[in-house]
Amino acid sequence: MPAPASFSNYIDTHADTISSDARRRQDVIMMGNWLNGQLNELGVETKLMDLGTHEMQGQTLQLPPAIIGRLGSDPAKKTVLIYGHYDVQPALKTDGWKTDPFTLVVDEDSGRLIGRGSTDDKGPILGWLNVIEAHKNLGIAMPVNVRFCFEGMEENGSEGLDECIQEEVKKGKDGWFDGVDCVCISDNYWLNTRTPALTYGLRGIAYFSINVTGPGQDLHSGLFGRTVHEPMTDLIKLMSKLVDHNGDILIPGIDDMVPPHDEEELRLYQKMDYTTEDIEEAAGGKEKKTVVLMGRMRQPSLSLHGIQGAFSEVGAKTVIPAKIGGKFSIRLVPPQTPEKIVPLVNAYLEAEFAKFNSKNKMEVEYLHGGKPWVADVRHWNFEAAKKAIEAVYKKTPDYTREGGSIPVTLTFAESLGVNVLLLPMGRADDGAHSTNEKLDRSNFIEGTKVLGTYLYEVGAAA
Amino acid sequence: MPAPASFSNYIDTHADTISSDARRRQDVIMMGNWLNGQLNELGVETKLMDLGTHEMQGQTLQLPPAIIGRLGSDPAKKTVLIYGHYDVQPALKTDGWKTDPFTLVVDEDSGRLIGRGSTDDKGPILGWLNVIEAHKNLGIAMPVNVRFCFEGMEENGSEGLDECIQEEVKKGKDGWFDGVDCVCISDNYWLNTRTPALTYGLRGIAYFSINVTGPGQDLHSGLFGRTVHEPMTDLIKLMSKLVDHNGDILIPGIDDMVPPHDEEELRLYQKMDYTTEDIEEAAGGKEKKTVVLMGRMRQPSLSLHGIQGAFSEVGAKTVIPAKIGGKFSIRLVPPQTPEKIVPLVNAYLEAEFAKFNSKNKMEVEYLHGGKPWVADVRHWNFEAAKKAIEAVYKKTPDYTREGGSIPVTLTFAESLGVNVLLLPMGRADDGAHSTNEKLDRSNFIEGTKVLGTYLYEVGAAA
Repeated sequence: MPAPASFSNYIDTHADTISSDARRRQDVIMMGNWLNGQLNELGVETKLMDLGTHEMQGQTLQLPPAIIGRLGSDPAKKTVLIYGHYDVQPALKTDGWKTDPFTLVVDEDSGRLIGRGSTDDKGPILGWLNVIEAHKNLGIAMPVNVRFCFEGMEENGSEGLDECIQEEVKKGKDGWFDGVDCVCISDNYWLNTRTPALTYGLRGIAYFSINVTGPGQDLHSGLFGRTVHEPMTDLIKLMSKLVDHNGDILIPGIDDMVPPHDEEELRLYQKMDYTTEDIEEAAGGKEKKTVVLMGRMRQPSLSLHGIQGAFSEVGAKTVIPAKIGGKFSIRLVPPQTPEKIVPLVNAYLEAEFAKFNSKNKMEVEYLHGGKPWVADVRHWNFEAAKKAIEAVYKKTPDYTREGGSIPVTLTFAESLGVNVLLLPMGRADDGAHSTNEKLDRSNFIEGTKVLGTYLYEVGAAA
Repeated sequence: MPAPASFSNYIDTHADTISSDARRRQDVIMMGNWLNGQLNELGVETKLMDLGTHEMQGQTLQLPPAIIGRLGSDPAKKTVLIYGHYDVQPALKTDGWKTDPFTLVVDEDSGRLIGRGSTDDKGPILGWLNVIEAHKNLGIAMPVNVRFCFEGMEENGSEGLDECIQEEVKKGKDGWFDGVDCVCISDNYWLNTRTPALTYGLRGIAYFSINVTGPGQDLHSGLFGRTVHEPMTDLIKLMSKLVDHNGDILIPGIDDMVPPHDEEELRLYQKMDYTTEDIEEAAGGKEKKTVVLMGRMRQPSLSLHGIQGAFSEVGAKTVIPAKIGGKFSIRLVPPQTPEKIVPLVNAYLEAEFAKFNSKNKMEVEYLHGGKPWVADVRHWNFEAAKKAIEAVYKKTPDYTREGGSIPVTLTFAESLGVNVLLLPMGRADDGAHSTNEKLDRSNFIEGTKVLGTYLYEVGAAA
């Protein structure tokens, strides 16, 4: 069932009602309150879920609230649960941004909305708000009941959210998630810059810090060079043993855990609308198409992120750092889980470190993680989204698996027992988590139409 | 010739006239102006040497001035050139300081003066000022003519100073360094916490950054993990190939360049007042005494300092850094020089990187360096200092070589052609360049007496 013409027309003619505030990450609770107020103004009943406190940077901090929302309770209609996150990744102008990362810049020439969070994940949240606003202002009834779950800790492990969702589900008829028929999450990206996508898989993640400590304090390399066991020497050597130049993970048992693809699966990857130019433009490297796609979608990956506690500034400080943490993470695919991976990582690093016969101390710290996920693409939830994309974009979507992790996807799938759909709004080159993050204006406008149309198709689904 | 009793008595009774301002590094020019004013008040004629500008952190910055000073021109007296530096290493409270690093704290319980620069190198400069003040206030003539050279860029490669000194020397009779008979530098430390030292050798240094660049911008490890050649993988692998766990330098030709010690030299190291407890207390490691001492004094060392451009904060950012620089430096001993070392480093890293067959770009950047140095300990300059130490401390000094680098030492030795002496004020556990840097009050007071007495012994030398 297509959306009413008046809906798409409203989105086109009200395209300038984009909020221009992408707030700083430390203002995340303020951002939550702002979002809550917007929802209330649109007639959405909400409650702010206190997720308690957590330890970070040596402090006990209040977690930003999860916002649970409810719009409509018509038993004759289907109920869609919508998820988004209102927090963003860190960003500094000095990282290489051309504009202030926390001021949304509308570049009329390129048609781009530029700023931290534009595509990940404030743009999609505003898309949903615009869908509701359009129906409110046009006086049209929503085609489905909607439930919301917006969180403010996605970029830092979604702390506290799983428990919150599971408790809400456990309340059964008294809970706000009672009667949810399907879930829709818009927090990922097209495979390319041309063709909308529906996503049925996500990689999980396990994030680690290798902590090496030696001397009681930082030392002068002139005074102590070649007289002490330097923690950096051990740490760098350990980090060098994690991943090979071609991306192969050197920790035994991790790459092997994934079954090889068969011919049918290979053809699936060959069919996708993708050229190596996409990866060249976005990442500056050349690879074979199927290797790139499988590398992202059906293989684990290991990335070295950096070192905490070492010299990281401009200049030439002659320090022997005494206490350092090497950060890396592994993206996981089925059947891998953090529970299966963590012992392999610990055992390998401990065995390698033992070979050094070092006087330093080493511990592997597991910081956070999430399981990978795959969904059934033949479900009516995916069919509804496919029809919405065909109606708005006049194209058949790519069916993709995503390389990133959104742990809450699995929480919804497992605790609600319903189909979960990932319906991306942005493009592959948006630069999420990177400098100069953007969302194309056309993706925001047409994407908002897709979100609205999807709700109509869900409402009409058998 | 001993110093007059009134001099030592003055230093004892005026021990509280310690200036309490250790200024922030960015205020280094202000610090220079303050020091210049102090010198003028004490009757020292000065000129501020404009060292021009340099490029740092993408900006063109005015270099802090070198202060050249002159006190006395009696042709019947010897002339001593005194060097010190009024800049300090960076320091943040969050690095692990127990007190604000830029406020001098006098801890009465431990008898320590705590703060950035207390021992490196503001304490010794204040010692010299106190020697002059004592003579001025007591109305005693100085036993020698004194020339000063105080700079504000020592901790960042002494930019501009070499040329300044060389030009001053070239002026001959019109220059302020005309007639200098010897040089005294107080900018290092005793070998231990008990016995004063005279230092006749310094290691040089060559400081490098391995710059690896790949993608056009930082990337999200979920989106791009296992699809691009990650610069961190290459950089960490290169850094892991520089130095072994036991401190051996893996770059071919560097360790080999140093001739092995003979039996006589070994005995020299065995005789030094040193126990492994000294290194245990200061660095938390156990080593054999001669290995530790030779490691610091007669062997090169390679330290990995950190990575610029990677994730270095608390937390768990899932970034693939696009442009990173791995910082390391090599401490040099004769016959090594930066000129001999740099090509070896470049050739090795380029060859190793070529083996990776990586699509990233790598360049080895040589940031700064200085040659190593050794002096003749039988010279009257060293004899004068030995007598001063015996007079004040009632102990025979250790004759040491130092692990750090003070490139200006070599500049003075080569351009003036006179003997240069290193006369340390602080102890081995002072924590120069580290957290909670301190100078023991007793070292400051007795050390100031040594500086004054040394001038008398120079004056009396044949």
